[in-house]
Amino acid sequence: MPAERLKAVCVFCGSSAGKNEAYVRAATELGTALVENGLELVYGGGNRGLMGAVAASVAERGGVVTGFIPETMTQFEGLQTVGTVHFVPTMHARKAAMAEASGAFVALPGGFGTFEELLEMVTWSQLRLHDKPVAILNTLGFYDPFLALLDRAVEDGFIAPVNRGLLIVKDNVPDLLAAIIDYTRPENAGYD
Amino acid sequence: MPAERLKAVCVFCGSSAGKNEAYVRAATELGTALVENGLELVYGGGNRGLMGAVAASVAERGGVVTGFIPETMTQFEGLQTVGTVHFVPTMHARKAAMAEASGAFVALPGGFGTFEELLEMVTWSQLRLHDKPVAILNTLGFYDPFLALLDRAVEDGFIAPVNRGLLIVKDNVPDLLAAIIDYTRPENAGYD
Ligand SMILES: [Mg+2]
Repeated sequence: MPAERLKAVCVFCGSSAGKNEAYVRAATELGTALVENGLELVYGGGNRGLMGAVAASVAERGGVVTGFIPETMTQFEGLQTVGTVHFVPTMHARKAAMAEASGAFVALPGGFGTFEELLEMVTWSQLRLHDKPVAILNTLGFYDPFLALLDRAVEDGFIAPVNRGLLIVKDNVPDLLAAIIDYTRPENAGYD
Repeated sequence: MPAERLKAVCVFCGSSAGKNEAYVRAATELGTALVENGLELVYGGGNRGLMGAVAASVAERGGVVTGFIPETMTQFEGLQTVGTVHFVPTMHARKAAMAEASGAFVALPGGFGTFEELLEMVTWSQLRLHDKPVAILNTLGFYDPFLALLDRAVEDGFIAPVNRGLLIVKDNVPDLLAAIIDYTRPENAGYD
């Protein structure tokens, strides 16, 4: 069991909604499940696409939403009108603030920025800069090629198998929530 | 033609050598080609694996090597004994310093950290935080699953096709060097 009860979950996802409505449905379902489990949402603070969908879902059910956004990013991602938004000076400041405010990280589908946010939290876990769970909600197998990349990197000696295990991958919300709530860091995981 | 002549190239790569010696050969070949083209190396400052191979290759041919490393990372990546090394306080400071010191970014094979560094520079290009080329040296098709992920994200509406074009992909060093030296940012690329 984790030492401290999980309080807030950081969600990384696209500022686009995606072409398959299953992605918005999954974002909405995740928001609902967070509130049902007494968990707060931390995220990038935009109101578009999947970002907007997950925030709206949490807020509609009376959950707590906290966003962190550089002012210049509001032209691209919009600005949430629910919960609390904190303006931060840079993209690095945004990521540091989201990491600090959260006890777990979940990636939904997205683009370059989403992949990068996800990978940074795995990298920091590997470096023991944090010991929080990092998870992918793999709706419609969106992340399958990403998992193939990790497999290739393990096979070729660039990622230790135990560190590959730092990343939780689930294809549905209930399994994902259970995995991050019950998370125990794999023994011997770490960069060396 | 680029407005300013390219001076320094930032290389992201593994602190492991990988199980196929083609990876070290490619890192060494890239180092040689940088020096032959009058280009300096900027990188993470370690002396292990592909990081060590590219730095050694540049230094052996009389090229300029500049590394940026958080002191705590030397236990994992070693510490270069060639060129200049700058100690930086955090992983974010390292990435900001490498980005600032470089006119182009090249990823060789690596693990979570390498993927994350690569993706951050593409993300920043998309946001117009820089207009520098970002390239993958796709030795032995290591990055093929990563390219499949980007294709999926384009197909599903999370990455605009024009922004997918911000990433240069070459399977050999001469083509890669030519592409980053002659780089012109794709018209209309950007996040919106
Ligand atoms: Mg990053």
